[in-house]
Amino acid sequence: MNRSLNEINLQIFGASHSLYIGGVLDGIPTGIKIDLEQIDKAVFTRKGGGLGTTSRVEFDQINWLSGISDGITNGLPIAFAIENKNIKKEDYKFSETPRPGHSDFTQLMKYGQFAELSGGGQSSGRMTIVLVIAGQIARQIIPSILAKATIKEIGGEVDYLELIERTQKEGDSLGGIVECTIQNVPAGLGEPFFDSVESVMSHLLFSIPGVKGVEFGAGFASARMKGSEFYDKFVDTTGRTITNNSGGINGGITNGNDIVFRVAFRPPSSIRKPVETINIQTGEKVTMEIGGRHDVSYVLRTPVIIESVAYLVIADFYLRAKIKKL
Amino acid sequence: MNRSLNEINLQIFGASHSLYIGGVLDGIPTGIKIDLEQIDKAVFTRKGGGLGTTSRVEFDQINWLSGISDGITNGLPIAFAIENKNIKKEDYKFSETPRPGHSDFTQLMKYGQFAELSGGGQSSGRMTIVLVIAGQIARQIIPSILAKATIKEIGGEVDYLELIERTQKEGDSLGGIVECTIQNVPAGLGEPFFDSVESVMSHLLFSIPGVKGVEFGAGFASARMKGSEFYDKFVDTTGRTITNNSGGINGGITNGNDIVFRVAFRPPSSIRKPVETINIQTGEKVTMEIGGRHDVSYVLRTPVIIESVAYLVIADFYLRAKIKKL
Amino acid sequence: MNRSLNEINLQIFGASHSLYIGGVLDGIPTGIKIDLEQIDKAVFTRKGGGLGTTSRVEFDQINWLSGISDGITNGLPIAFAIENKNIKKEDYKFSETPRPGHSDFTQLMKYGQFAELSGGGQSSGRMTIVLVIAGQIARQIIPSILAKATIKEIGGEVDYLELIERTQKEGDSLGGIVECTIQNVPAGLGEPFFDSVESVMSHLLFSIPGVKGVEFGAGFASARMKGSEFYDKFVDTTGRTITNNSGGINGGITNGNDIVFRVAFRPPSSIRKPVETINIQTGEKVTMEIGGRHDVSYVLRTPVIIESVAYLVIADFYLRAKIKKL
Amino acid sequence: MNRSLNEINLQIFGASHSLYIGGVLDGIPTGIKIDLEQIDKAVFTRKGGGLGTTSRVEFDQINWLSGISDGITNGLPIAFAIENKNIKKEDYKFSETPRPGHSDFTQLMKYGQFAELSGGGQSSGRMTIVLVIAGQIARQIIPSILAKATIKEIGGEVDYLELIERTQKEGDSLGGIVECTIQNVPAGLGEPFFDSVESVMSHLLFSIPGVKGVEFGAGFASARMKGSEFYDKFVDTTGRTITNNSGGINGGITNGNDIVFRVAFRPPSSIRKPVETINIQTGEKVTMEIGGRHDVSYVLRTPVIIESVAYLVIADFYLRAKIKKL
Repeated sequence: MNRSLNEINLQIFGASHSLYIGGVLDGIPTGIKIDLEQIDKAVFTRKGGGLGTTSRVEFDQINWLSGISDGITNGLPIAFAIENKNIKKEDYKFSETPRPGHSDFTQLMKYGQFAELSGGGQSSGRMTIVLVIAGQIARQIIPSILAKATIKEIGGEVDYLELIERTQKEGDSLGGIVECTIQNVPAGLGEPFFDSVESVMSHLLFSIPGVKGVEFGAGFASARMKGSEFYDKFVDTTGRTITNNSGGINGGITNGNDIVFRVAFRPPSSIRKPVETINIQTGEKVTMEIGGRHDVSYVLRTPVIIESVAYLVIADFYLRAKIKKL
Repeated sequence: MNRSLNEINLQIFGASHSLYIGGVLDGIPTGIKIDLEQIDKAVFTRKGGGLGTTSRVEFDQINWLSGISDGITNGLPIAFAIENKNIKKEDYKFSETPRPGHSDFTQLMKYGQFAELSGGGQSSGRMTIVLVIAGQIARQIIPSILAKATIKEIGGEVDYLELIERTQKEGDSLGGIVECTIQNVPAGLGEPFFDSVESVMSHLLFSIPGVKGVEFGAGFASARMKGSEFYDKFVDTTGRTITNNSGGINGGITNGNDIVFRVAFRPPSSIRKPVETINIQTGEKVTMEIGGRHDVSYVLRTPVIIESVAYLVIADFYLRAKIKKL
Repeated sequence: MNRSLNEINLQIFGASHSLYIGGVLDGIPTGIKIDLEQIDKAVFTRKGGGLGTTSRVEFDQINWLSGISDGITNGLPIAFAIENKNIKKEDYKFSETPRPGHSDFTQLMKYGQFAELSGGGQSSGRMTIVLVIAGQIARQIIPSILAKATIKEIGGEVDYLELIERTQKEGDSLGGIVECTIQNVPAGLGEPFFDSVESVMSHLLFSIPGVKGVEFGAGFASARMKGSEFYDKFVDTTGRTITNNSGGINGGITNGNDIVFRVAFRPPSSIRKPVETINIQTGEKVTMEIGGRHDVSYVLRTPVIIESVAYLVIADFYLRAKIKKL
Repeated sequence: MNRSLNEINLQIFGASHSLYIGGVLDGIPTGIKIDLEQIDKAVFTRKGGGLGTTSRVEFDQINWLSGISDGITNGLPIAFAIENKNIKKEDYKFSETPRPGHSDFTQLMKYGQFAELSGGGQSSGRMTIVLVIAGQIARQIIPSILAKATIKEIGGEVDYLELIERTQKEGDSLGGIVECTIQNVPAGLGEPFFDSVESVMSHLLFSIPGVKGVEFGAGFASARMKGSEFYDKFVDTTGRTITNNSGGINGGITNGNDIVFRVAFRPPSSIRKPVETINIQTGEKVTMEIGGRHDVSYVLRTPVIIESVAYLVIADFYLRAKIKKL
């Protein structure tokens, strides 16, 4: 669980049900002021707790282990850990009747009997707290850039409050779509070909549990457009364009317009309704109830996660760009 | 233009209008039989030349520089180069009137006056020939796995031959969608979190020029589904499921069902119709005609590219998996 | 402070005077039994506390944060943290009168005023506790391989106890040489050219504070030998040789004989004797006394560190080798 | 054979007896003027051809494949290839009677029967031509820095011309020591702990075939010094010191004084005198004569290789340093 961007390295440790979960963010320049309160706020936002999210009480106190002195980065790797309180180790036999739609089966296939499956193990949404903290730190390298993610639809509805309440009562769950806009991005960030902005951004976005699709600019809709309607016409010498079908990126490199992308989340597989599975030892069909706390939809918590990913990626490209022209 | 997977490293060199274009594929195990004829065939398939593709004569003779002796890998990096024949260096002043929708403007912003823009430079579709060769080599590590990509729609049409001809006459271009299915993938490939199958695959897919969206399994449609309809029910103890909404991947790890993903291509920006741009020195509006050879749609050439990317990614995960359980 | 071997990644966090120091070891296969007691013992051995080492009381209780369940690796990154107790933040103005021979001056040049210099910051010998823990974990991947490091000389003396006592009284310090032998290494480990065993091993050895030289086999002495006396004659078909001037490595790859290397440590720059420095603001010469606790020689603590580095490197090569022949 | 520094990536392809040998250098900033004549000169210097070096006629014409237009870097990876002319594929059965001291045996153990052993395969000194070209390119990023390597001794002699002639007549070979001084290095380059200047430099130095030892500053001699005599006293506020026992590096970071290191080369194992080996199939002892062209000593050709490695490493650290303080 290590992601090496070019200048910044993020290592996650722990998981949903380990004693601690945390991360180490290496490569952040020295002398950057870090707004710890803003980070706490972002972590709190991710926590949800409101409509349609689990009642799990996670008071996420960040323990700063190294890298920040008096609120300023000191060149050491920035390490932080959050205690996982209020954990009930599941005693369910995942190795016999894997929960459908979860990674119980795939982790068993990968790691064998020693896999740590409790709470979803390495695939848990809990891991995204580390993305949020890392991204909010990275953000402070590029203070003039603003990432703003909003929920576009849940369960196909643009106006979805009533649907969420109804689905929660039914014990079911909902997918949704989140859109992110990144403003004030300078032109010239991104590396053509393998490290295009789209490549590096999607790599990290598909790490977020539940993501099944990512598109930039007009995205899948562009597949139905003609070249003459798709191309974005320049407005002035700054590279600003009238439309933004390319989502702010041409040839993998930012063009100075807003970066725009959308992320599709499948519905959570943990639902209160009984689900069908199979005993993988005996082949026998089993109807099971998945215990634990359930979100009606991932998307309710994800805007701040997606914004944080955006900051992490853009901050790294910003640092890389400093050495491409001497 | 270096992509380091965990075990396999691919370095591209050259570009559309350099003397040679080629690649170095490092990390392929020794003693693998390489079917050079199959690679030639795949390269030929990519070339297109039929309906809706450019008339550019690229006879792509692969010069094998090292790494293969008597058709078998010998442990050296596999290097290959293809001559770029028939090149006309554009004398168009991209630095004054960048072609809209291209990377002319963004590369200028990134590299300054020394950028190599001729033929699209680093963003040219020509680069994908290296992906094809590398992917077809990687394929031979995992001979029982089969990737099959097909065009699902062009310009929104499932039956699109007539549309292509009409668009070609109009001097316009079309977007489209390609779907890829990977069969016989063992369960347990992929690394949870940062190196999920989706993450690594999308990273490479978004390197292909023109890609604006990637989705796995039900993808964006899953955002409109309920959990109770989305989750894939197990059929038997092998992990086979009735539906395949998850696209063969749970928690970032393959589940033994087919991997399924779709790729959205925007329409090419090089069209015969005049386009509007701006002189970025003076701000003056300019109507320009983009010379050169034009594909009506990228998607016509891309299935073999996408299959090759699939082989490259899965072969790397296959090698990684060999050391996760001792 | 991240070191990415090919299969194993080690991230260090914290430093000498941060609240915690620790590491995250990623890529260790699942299902490996970890002997926690052996690790504690190795950490205790590194601590020194005997003749010629500092009196700093470091009871190094390892907090295991993730990655090991019931003494067996579970596939999660292995994270651990050790509290830094008994810290006195130096109030000395390193930014004015840097201690000579230390990294005070170089860290100031690199990081500027925000550098964390207390206790040596990132260059402190304290960091090696993480190497010891990581190496002892890696060791358990290759249980039949044994690394044994011994002190060959201190201050130029083979029999050095009296010299140490005398030097301690004088308030001075001593350099020394440690030799390491790795037994039962299979032939065929190591990658030719850039990732030769010598390259990867020396990279990590030169991370240990105080190391100024590394040599393999006959090392510097081989520079004075003729080819006819240097080459190691085969004894039998296993590749065993009569002499071992090549230190068990030919062409960067292990030959099945013991790997043998030697590491030269300079004397510590922290001595009780007054030292001369300069006020880098004013240029004025200053005689200073370096407070704090001093080791007479690094080498007294280092054998277990060097063994741990050896295990880490060989374990990684062992994992890599599993995929070079299919 | 890929070496990823932080900003610069070097991929080698080919080997001693493949049709071409070459490299791809990625990450060099755009707009750097490259003095191609200087590179030719450095390649010519490496070739030797004078006293004590092989008579192999290698006219090393560099074919520049991409990355340089009109003598200036254009942002594309810099690729180059050199034809291996005048190759006689050895028909010797290395798989039966491996040459002692060579990597014949170890490569067989690693790669099995498909190993490419002709001309030393991946371990051939021929590979260093790529280091020279890459290093001389990197040098042009840091034009004010000068690396100067000189032969300190051969066969233990400081004045060694007569010894070389005599040894050549005897059909034997000699080891030696090369010292390198890097001048005008700014203070503050290098990353503490894992990517210390010593770590990264030694990693690359130990890639050069025949290297068995590397030491910085006083090196192994420092093991016999006291702290009070070892530490370098500051002369003035620039960090200049009277002595240079630390070799210009404290805590892994440059201090502004010259970087000084020495490299020990073993004698070549290819000698005209008959050598003893074993038939590894039958165990029978065999006396063999190693055909081909032989250098009396590696060191005669190596100064320019070592200088080139120095430029490559320092240029990368120079680029990294640009983003450590914003």
